[in-house]
Formats: sequence, C-alpha cells, structure tokens
Amino acid sequence: MSNGKPTAIVDAMVSERRFDVLGIGNAIVDVIAHAEDAFLSENSLNKGTMTLIDGTEAAELYGRMGASVESSGGSAANTIAGLSALGGKGSFIGKVRDDQLGGIFRHDIRAAGVSFETSAASDGQHTARCLIFVTPDAQRTMQTYLGVSATLDPGDIDPTVIADSKVIYLEGYLWDPPMAKKAFQEAAKIAHKAGNMVALTLSDPFCVDRHRLDFLDLVEEHIDILFANESEILSLYETEDFDEALQEVRKHCQIAALTRSEKGSVVVSGDEIHVIDAEPVEKIIDTTGAGDLYAAGFLYGLTQGRDLHDCGRLGSICSGEIISHYGARPEADLAVLAAKAFDN
Amino acid sequence: MSNGKPTAIVDAMVSERRFDVLGIGNAIVDVIAHAEDAFLSENSLNKGTMTLIDGTEAAELYGRMGASVESSGGSAANTIAGLSALGGKGSFIGKVRDDQLGGIFRHDIRAAGVSFETSAASDGQHTARCLIFVTPDAQRTMQTYLGVSATLDPGDIDPTVIADSKVIYLEGYLWDPPMAKKAFQEAAKIAHKAGNMVALTLSDPFCVDRHRLDFLDLVEEHIDILFANESEILSLYETEDFDEALQEVRKHCQIAALTRSEKGSVVVSGDEIHVIDAEPVEKIIDTTGAGDLYAAGFLYGLTQGRDLHDCGRLGSICSGEIISHYGARPEADLAVLAAKAFDN
Repeated sequence: MSNGKPTAIVDAMVSERRFDVLGIGNAIVDVIAHAEDAFLSENSLNKGTMTLIDGTEAAELYGRMGASVESSGGSAANTIAGLSALGGKGSFIGKVRDDQLGGIFRHDIRAAGVSFETSAASDGQHTARCLIFVTPDAQRTMQTYLGVSATLDPGDIDPTVIADSKVIYLEGYLWDPPMAKKAFQEAAKIAHKAGNMVALTLSDPFCVDRHRLDFLDLVEEHIDILFANESEILSLYETEDFDEALQEVRKHCQIAALTRSEKGSVVVSGDEIHVIDAEPVEKIIDTTGAGDLYAAGFLYGLTQGRDLHDCGRLGSICSGEIISHYGARPEADLAVLAAKAFDN
Repeated sequence: MSNGKPTAIVDAMVSERRFDVLGIGNAIVDVIAHAEDAFLSENSLNKGTMTLIDGTEAAELYGRMGASVESSGGSAANTIAGLSALGGKGSFIGKVRDDQLGGIFRHDIRAAGVSFETSAASDGQHTARCLIFVTPDAQRTMQTYLGVSATLDPGDIDPTVIADSKVIYLEGYLWDPPMAKKAFQEAAKIAHKAGNMVALTLSDPFCVDRHRLDFLDLVEEHIDILFANESEILSLYETEDFDEALQEVRKHCQIAALTRSEKGSVVVSGDEIHVIDAEPVEKIIDTTGAGDLYAAGFLYGLTQGRDLHDCGRLGSICSGEIISHYGARPEADLAVLAAKAFDN
C-alpha cells in the first residue's frame, strides 16, 4: 500500500455500505445569542466550554439571555449534516420529544439529506436545548439542557444500520447520560463485528475530566479514529505538552486527528504523520461547530478513500466555513468549496 | 414652527408617555431557509410577496423546505424591536400560544427591551409561523400560517397602554384575521382620544388588494402616519405612476413615508417633502424586514422630536442594517450606527 494505511482501514472504506457514517449523539436545538464577557462572568459561565444544566437552570438562564436565533445543533448531528452537504451518505441516531423543537430538529437533519429514524419520545422531558453565548472574540460558551436526549438507550440503536455504515461516529458528550453510554458500547461491538470502524470525538476538556478513565480505556481498546482538540487531548493524558500527548495517542488509535484552532491540525496514523494548515478565514464570527465540521470533512475524505493529508485538508475547509458565520450547520455549499480546493 | 410640522404632531411627540411606540401585529416566528428560484416555481410561490396558508399547507411546505433557522419575526414586532434597539421605549400586542415557539417569541421581544404582556392562549391553534424562502437575489418569499395569532381580539387591547403611547403602529396584515381588525379600530379610537398618533404600514401589495376599500377609508379618516413601499402605494391608488400616488396620499395623511428599495424613500407631510437616499450596503443578503426596520428608524426619530429628513435617514440606516444579514431583527447596534451617521 503506497500511503501506508493499515489494511483494516482500507477494507472498511472500500466496502459497500448503505451509509458512509452513522453518527450517534445528543439531538439538540441550539439557541444562539451575542453576549459580552461581563455577562459570562456575572452568570459564572466558563468561556469556551460546555456545561450541563437542568431544566430549571435552563429556563432561568434563558430568561437572562438576549434575543436569540434557533438552529438545529448537536455535535455528532452537525458532523453528519456536514458530511451530507459534502455528498456523503449520513445517518443519525439521537432522541427528541414530539414537541416543536423536536420537530425542528427532525426537519433540519432530514432536509440536510441525513437519514434520521429514531422515534420521538411522547412523554417525559422536552427536546434538548443548548444555550450558546457568542462573545465578541467569536468564542462560544455552551450551557446544555439534555432533556429527553439523555434517555437514548440501547433499544434506539438499530443493529442493521450500524452494520451498514462504514464508520460509526460518537460524541464524548454521550458519556454524560448513563443509558446512552450503554447504547454506544453495544453499537461499537456490532460495528467491529461487521468490519466497520468506530470513531470518537472527545467533545470538551471538561467532558474528558468527567470520563477520563472510560475514555482512556476506549482509546486503547475500542476506538479506531479519534478526534480531539488540543485542550481535550492534553486533558486526556493530563499533560501540558502537545507533543507528549501526540506521542501517546499514536500508540493506541489507528488514526488520530488533533485540531489546534488557528494552528491547524495534526493527523497521525502509526508512522504516518501530517501537519495541516488551518484554512484562512476572512473574519471569524462564531467558532460553534468548528470541531464538528472538521470531523465532517475528515470522515467524508476517509470514506471516499482519500489519503490522510486530503482528509485533514477537507476538515480544515469545512471548519473554516462554519466559523465564518453564526451557527453550526453549513451555509455555503461545502461540496463546491471542497471541489475548488482540490482543483488548485 | 420652523419645520412646518402640524401642531398636533409636535404635541404628540413632546408629550410625556410611558411608551414611544406601541405596535399591534401578528406574533410570528420566522423559519428561514435558502431556496433556488426553481423551488419557488415548483411550489407556485409568488416571489417577494406574503401569502397566507393554513396549518396543513404549512406542514407540507415545511416538509419540502431546506434546513432552516428560526428567529422571532412579525412585521410590527420587528419594528418595535428595532425601535427598542435604537433606544426608544416600545411595547407590543400580539397573540401566541403557550407552546415552545410562543415561548421563543415572548423571550426574544422581551430580550429586545420591549414590553409584551399579551396573554398566551392555552388552547386552539399553534403560534404563528412564517416560512421564508430567501433566493440568491436576496429577495424573500413568505408563506404565513397565522395560527393562534389570528385570534387577537379587542379583549387583548389594554386601553391604558394605548393611551400611554405617543404612537400606535399597526400592520396592514392585521386586516386578514377578522377579530384583529376590530381590535385595531378600538385601539385607534382610544389613541386619538388621548391625543396620540396612529400609524399604519400597508404591509404587502396583495394585502392591499384584499383590503383596498378598508385601507382607503383608513388613510382618509383615521391614519396620521402611513408607511408603504412603492408597489403597495401603487396598489392602494390603483395606478402605475409613483408621483400620482404621492400626490394622492399627501392629501390625506399628516405624514406618509414611501420606501422605494435602492431608490431610497420619499417623506411627505403637507407641503413639506423630502427625498432620502438609500443607505449604501456592501452586499444585500436578505431583504426580510427592510420595511419594518425603516419604520423603526423613522418612528424613533419622530418620537425623539427629530425633523422629517432625519426620520427618513434613520429609516434608511436601519433598513440598510437589516438587509445586510439573514433575519428581520437587528444584529448590529442600531443606536451606535445612528449616532455615527449623525456625527458626520
């Protein structure tokens, strides 16, 4: 093999499957507003991170939040919507309620061309919401009310869809709701049995803090493709040295894609390593979804049989698009952007 | 009086009132998506206009609509939110259901600094939605499901708030739901009795078609300040000549502000007439809310005691801001934009 990719990866990618990537994650509607830094400190919000809040806290914080715009979100859901926009075949599993926000989530992910068949809950908590505060520096601070999304359980995982997806992609945030974690473990087992690959994003440094032992075990034993940004991978290995974390992770995962904001990304697979530049962006407006869309581009490349350098470039192109406007679902035609980049 | 304004206007504007402007209109959540021209013709949508649809049609069309973004809207509500962003004291009356979209509408208008106390309906139809298709030429085509908004009735009009607002501002769209029309007539009577002014926007040329006789009567007998764009005022007087319509309207309303897209606006009050340029905009993205925000700037100026030339300029500045991004609620700080324009 000229590009040095392990045979298992190539087998999975050239296989005939109904879906390129199946995402499993929290099904969330984003509620996005501008906020000043003072608002974050007055409300004890930790800039750039995601914090879980309950329904009461969400209602209180929403009451203090400025006028907002609603847009479908959810980390893995954003990734699959991006993959679909690039031309990939995507599927998503996540839990909504049969309420208006649930209807919006379902509409938007299907309108993005993604297969979404998880049944809506007819009682219990409401559809998940993520209150996103975008500060003038384009950073986003997220407060998430998981609501009914936390009730995703193994019964929602359709084994035939898992077996029929080249890659299943999971968000680390899924470790927060207890049943979803079980659903994931089940899904990973089925995927590997079918010769498919399992990808994970670490989601957030505090999420890594909450589940470090689980994540270390996963990365060593169950995950083929790992996505993490710099602070997440440093948190995983409890180090302050990026290169140390890089040397650690390459021992375990077949592929790791580590994003570093304006410094670009590093893609490593055994002896193969690529250092990819970030895509130049005229003005960064809102960094929400940057990691999600990097994963979208990367996984689209991978499932089309591209080499890892191209996968990383596709990731950069997609994250460059998403940070140039509000919201975490693409506005520009990603397929056109990608085609242009590879024409040059 | 140096600027030739009739004494009644000046009296109303320098009066001490709790609110500068009270808007009465349909309380709507906008659902905004990109669409190609082909989509409009396939679905028999009339570009640039607003059409009323029922709940079933709305659900069907939403199913065919692309991934969308939700944002509070409603013509008069947008105007009052804009007035508030400029520093004016605004109040709004309109009907929502006690559903999630109703909660979003209430949150956003209050977060914009507007007083909104109309009680939510606890049964009946859902909160109004406007499906907005933005074509590549930045035109917007609107399909509105009025839902519970159409049940606004005289009981929702608080006479003390009417009496305590320098101007009450009504959208022509209110003529579509029958009870709202009655509510408006009641409101106009109370306003005039309290020495306040009554403003109307004609909303849409097809809306004018539906209610021409009512609107002609209103303009001749009850309206002090009229807002209309070119196609609306032409439709009202059933002429194709703008100047003819202009000469007609100046006979009736104390003030008429006629907007003409890139040609700017013409403001007329008896013998006083101003021809105001449009504000230059780098790139027009979405014309939704252009008329609403013109009215916001104009009414803010008027209620601050500005002359009609300045009122028109404030209108242009606000509509220039709103068409430079998606959605009909301001993103930039309108007060800062206005202050800058008057510094030069």
